[in-house]
Amino acid sequence: MLEAGLAELAAAGYHNVSLEGVARRAGVNKTTVYRRWGTREALLLDAIRARATAEVPIPDTGDLREDLLALVRTAIANLATVEVQAMVRVAVALSPHDDAVAATSRAFWTERLAVDGEVVRRAVERGEIAPVDPERVIEAVLGPPYFRLLVTGRPVTDEFLVATVDLVVDGLRR
Amino acid sequence: MLEAGLAELAAAGYHNVSLEGVARRAGVNKTTVYRRWGTREALLLDAIRARATAEVPIPDTGDLREDLLALVRTAIANLATVEVQAMVRVAVALSPHDDAVAATSRAFWTERLAVDGEVVRRAVERGEIAPVDPERVIEAVLGPPYFRLLVTGRPVTDEFLVATVDLVVDGLRR
Repeated sequence: MLEAGLAELAAAGYHNVSLEGVARRAGVNKTTVYRRWGTREALLLDAIRARATAEVPIPDTGDLREDLLALVRTAIANLATVEVQAMVRVAVALSPHDDAVAATSRAFWTERLAVDGEVVRRAVERGEIAPVDPERVIEAVLGPPYFRLLVTGRPVTDEFLVATVDLVVDGLRR
Repeated sequence: MLEAGLAELAAAGYHNVSLEGVARRAGVNKTTVYRRWGTREALLLDAIRARATAEVPIPDTGDLREDLLALVRTAIANLATVEVQAMVRVAVALSPHDDAVAATSRAFWTERLAVDGEVVRRAVERGEIAPVDPERVIEAVLGPPYFRLLVTGRPVTDEFLVATVDLVVDGLRR
């Protein structure tokens, strides 16, 4: 049913999403959807939380460049799906007006950046790079593709991801 | 009146923005607002276009790091205002569902990245760095603070902007 909710969000836009539409997609009774969420805000929160608990494999190739590249490719493939993208876009628009959405997004990212930072901590331990704030590095490689995908609308090609990671790794190895 | 429109957008959220609210803020008749925009989409498009034509000083200190820092500080100070931030957040949410908003945002960024890229072109001409795609460099310094401000909600401190620019410049000078 959450999948149906995300699909409806992506197709209709947050503005026009209806719990009736979710029920239709899920093939369940309207009252079932209402009982579960009641409002589209509740649906959105549930979707963010589900994303937070999804298993994210942390690459460990022994090479920082390869690890970051694998991590960014997975994150962007995920963000490129209409469902996740719809959810993220709506969260961006609602955060200043909805404390629950803002807090849930922040909690999601606190956890995700800490987990992803592991690849940087390992590189420091291996002596591959000098000590650095691991989360900053993750933000430096995720920021530009998120910026393209959500804000500028420029194409997020694999070549762009490679160039983004290379620039950051070059900076760290200097 | 456009200022009133942006203030209303920031205060009410796109979802709840009303042209009546804009009229109240601007101290003009409701029909005046309707004649000018008709819909909130038209108001949003007008706001993006106004931002596009705003004068943006391109720093020219003779040092890439200083130029990028000045550029990012100005961009983020601008994005940190409630009006611009509301406009950008709404554009992020609407782009997949509204071709005019998507096209206007893309046109804005095509122009802005080209203009900002001037500081990188100059650094290449000075021989400060090896030839590089200028717009990529701008995206590498704007991406992480946009990511923080819009997506993760982490604080965009000046120290963060400095660290972001330093990492990129280190990568380019390697």
